[in-house]
Amino acid sequence: MKHVKEHFAVVGGGLVGSLWALMAARRGHQVDIYERRDDPRKGSALGGRSINLALSDRGWRALEKAGMLDKVREIAMPIQGRLMHAVDGHTTFQRYGQEGQPGVLGDGQCIYSVSRAGLNRMLIEAAEGHEGVQVHFGHKCADVDLRRQDAVGLTFEHGGEPVNVEADRVFGTDGAFSAVRDRMMRTDRFDYEQKYLAHGYKEIEMKANADGSFKMREDALHIWPRGNFMLMALPNPNGTFTCTLFAPFEGHDESFENWGDDAAVTALFQRQFPDVLPLLPNLLDDWNDHPTSSLVMVRCEPWHRGERVCLMGDAAHAIVPFYGQGMNSGMEDCTVLDDLLDSEPDWGTVMSEYTRLRKPAGDAILELALRNYVEMRDLTGDPRFLLQKKIEARLQQRYPDEWLPLYSQVTFSHTPYHEALAAGAAQDAIMHEVMDRPDIEAVWDSEEVAEAAMAKLRALHHA
Amino acid sequence: MKHVKEHFAVVGGGLVGSLWALMAARRGHQVDIYERRDDPRKGSALGGRSINLALSDRGWRALEKAGMLDKVREIAMPIQGRLMHAVDGHTTFQRYGQEGQPGVLGDGQCIYSVSRAGLNRMLIEAAEGHEGVQVHFGHKCADVDLRRQDAVGLTFEHGGEPVNVEADRVFGTDGAFSAVRDRMMRTDRFDYEQKYLAHGYKEIEMKANADGSFKMREDALHIWPRGNFMLMALPNPNGTFTCTLFAPFEGHDESFENWGDDAAVTALFQRQFPDVLPLLPNLLDDWNDHPTSSLVMVRCEPWHRGERVCLMGDAAHAIVPFYGQGMNSGMEDCTVLDDLLDSEPDWGTVMSEYTRLRKPAGDAILELALRNYVEMRDLTGDPRFLLQKKIEARLQQRYPDEWLPLYSQVTFSHTPYHEALAAGAAQDAIMHEVMDRPDIEAVWDSEEVAEAAMAKLRALHHA
Repeated sequence: MKHVKEHFAVVGGGLVGSLWALMAARRGHQVDIYERRDDPRKGSALGGRSINLALSDRGWRALEKAGMLDKVREIAMPIQGRLMHAVDGHTTFQRYGQEGQPGVLGDGQCIYSVSRAGLNRMLIEAAEGHEGVQVHFGHKCADVDLRRQDAVGLTFEHGGEPVNVEADRVFGTDGAFSAVRDRMMRTDRFDYEQKYLAHGYKEIEMKANADGSFKMREDALHIWPRGNFMLMALPNPNGTFTCTLFAPFEGHDESFENWGDDAAVTALFQRQFPDVLPLLPNLLDDWNDHPTSSLVMVRCEPWHRGERVCLMGDAAHAIVPFYGQGMNSGMEDCTVLDDLLDSEPDWGTVMSEYTRLRKPAGDAILELALRNYVEMRDLTGDPRFLLQKKIEARLQQRYPDEWLPLYSQVTFSHTPYHEALAAGAAQDAIMHEVMDRPDIEAVWDSEEVAEAAMAKLRALHHA
Repeated sequence: MKHVKEHFAVVGGGLVGSLWALMAARRGHQVDIYERRDDPRKGSALGGRSINLALSDRGWRALEKAGMLDKVREIAMPIQGRLMHAVDGHTTFQRYGQEGQPGVLGDGQCIYSVSRAGLNRMLIEAAEGHEGVQVHFGHKCADVDLRRQDAVGLTFEHGGEPVNVEADRVFGTDGAFSAVRDRMMRTDRFDYEQKYLAHGYKEIEMKANADGSFKMREDALHIWPRGNFMLMALPNPNGTFTCTLFAPFEGHDESFENWGDDAAVTALFQRQFPDVLPLLPNLLDDWNDHPTSSLVMVRCEPWHRGERVCLMGDAAHAIVPFYGQGMNSGMEDCTVLDDLLDSEPDWGTVMSEYTRLRKPAGDAILELALRNYVEMRDLTGDPRFLLQKKIEARLQQRYPDEWLPLYSQVTFSHTPYHEALAAGAAQDAIMHEVMDRPDIEAVWDSEEVAEAAMAKLRALHHA
């Protein structure tokens, strides 16, 4: 579909902003990216956000659309499943994907750990290297004038001076505390919610061995599920792990307010994570150097204003990190918007379709990510839950076209998140019935159990 | 309880701000009110908000605490109940209060219509006339510096120039689009939600007769309940009624998007409100002159920051107008904060207690007001609902210490809103059982029905 070549302003040069700028430039538009922070190549890494991220199929599809798949695979590290650590040091491995499936990069069906800073730099450089793209660092969005019909006026603050810009379209990719959304919030009938989790997190680095090798199995996301809190660790390509402790800020025996000094922190790790304590000689230094950070969720509606402005990524739908879908869902926003531009000539329709398609998906992945926190910190330590996952994996193996577990739909498919959420709820109701058999531990892998589950699923689809 | 005399900044000189300034000045504090708008005495009425408001017991208690009861009664007009208008012109009157009760001003148990502008002027003048209070009009809050420990820095814009102020305590009484809350929103772990109703409203004035008398019964709030939309009318002391049509913006046959021209508006009134059409010769002029306005709800938490800043009234809890409690709940914030200052010497405790006591009340009245829209526009036209109300009124009459209907608890008591909401839910469950008797229309006023309802209520209280 042909659109007139226009001038786009992309506010925010993070992962979603730089990826979208690249996609837009490939369509022939003139694109300016305005990024609040300074050029990361002239100093340290971009921002103070988490160090590594999980990239899965939705992200890969968007990267492929932008011609970036091969470059990004060079910095992506395959993670095959979760490794759960019990207090006594016993571990259980649970594969993410289906065995025998090649997966998006041929490493089997898995997710990938990537460095946020490394990926961001790669995308910014690709955008900057593309014809028609210019990147402006150190430009803080100070105002967006939404009143004009023929264009959007933007004011940035750069080196203490105002910079005025005019654009045909504005894409707010400026994150959970978006300045573009802030201006939309002051317009009539714009719904907005920011909600903080009652839990916070603290990051601790697990260094590599002297020879550069990993101190733990490196193809796994490690979890120490402890009921109301958990430790997790995700490997980085340089041999380190980023360990993150998630726990309530206050109001519980095990919460940050009660881990106020070195003795309490050491006692916590001795009590709850004894197997990892010897691997973290820098525990107390990192604990005291790193902040206890909060986790915010953002919901808003609509995601666009008229035919000239829209929000993408965290600016529209900031979520908690427990499904590894924050970046992937933002990149899927780019895929969907780009697809709409392929088929729809009218910008007004493109924008309203974008909200119509993506808003329910954003609400669903917010909900799924919240639930996955409970699953990771609590259920992954529960034998009954692990048995249910084994039965579901077996159903998937035997009936791959019919039984796709929720995790697989979210992580390895392109089914809209809200459809995956609904399908998962139906499967869960079936699995509760299956698990209620008193002899389930004996017959879990029987033909009878599989047939009963599939009969219920098929009955649902015909209802 | 003694507090050191301090400098208070009250941001927003509306009903809640001016009332709170007066209460604070009566405690001996030095109070500056900063109001965005110009002095209303030098021009037209304050703001573009609704013309009249319903004042009930919670508001009166706060006014009494501030020494304003006798002055405000001079401009208050008693409203004894709802008068429902059917399409065929048939009307049904439903008393708000209990017969034989004197009510707060001796007019029987009723609510009062007051002019927003008149009441605001009265309160501002009382504050301004009190020792230690200064009112600064035309001061728009541009920034609040929340980082300092020893005071709060405020910047206002006045005549194009910045005005910097320092205060010991800041009270954000600047309404649903509060600038003070806006700054709190950018601090860590502050939850915020703004949500617009899918329905909007349009105001039409019903003029007085030539002799200045009312065109309809003046001791009633008139409602034309029509299912998904409604017209209502509240009298003003000058002989006029403010008529307000509440309806969906779009997506329904009867919605503002389908009332786009004079013919459609006239046809709407002929079809749905034929009895009122002859009383509104200025219908089309007002329709075209007045905007179709939206209705926003605001929730946030906490309502305070540290020991120096808090939000009151709409800034903390903007609600829809259908329970007539918007102003009353804001005035109750003043009562509760003033009571806390009577008993608690420590400001940190005062502020956190204020959030702890008022936040659940704010959530509850938001919910109650939303539900009352459904009741007013839909149920008040339902014979079964009216019968239920008659039974409840009878129970209240016979067992006044035990059965206080939800409406009475909200309007004529000082029970915290969340406790009223819970008590109302219990009563509603009982009434559903009572109404399920197949012979209820024949036996509604029998001893047996009353005894059965009371037995259920007493069983609940003993459970």
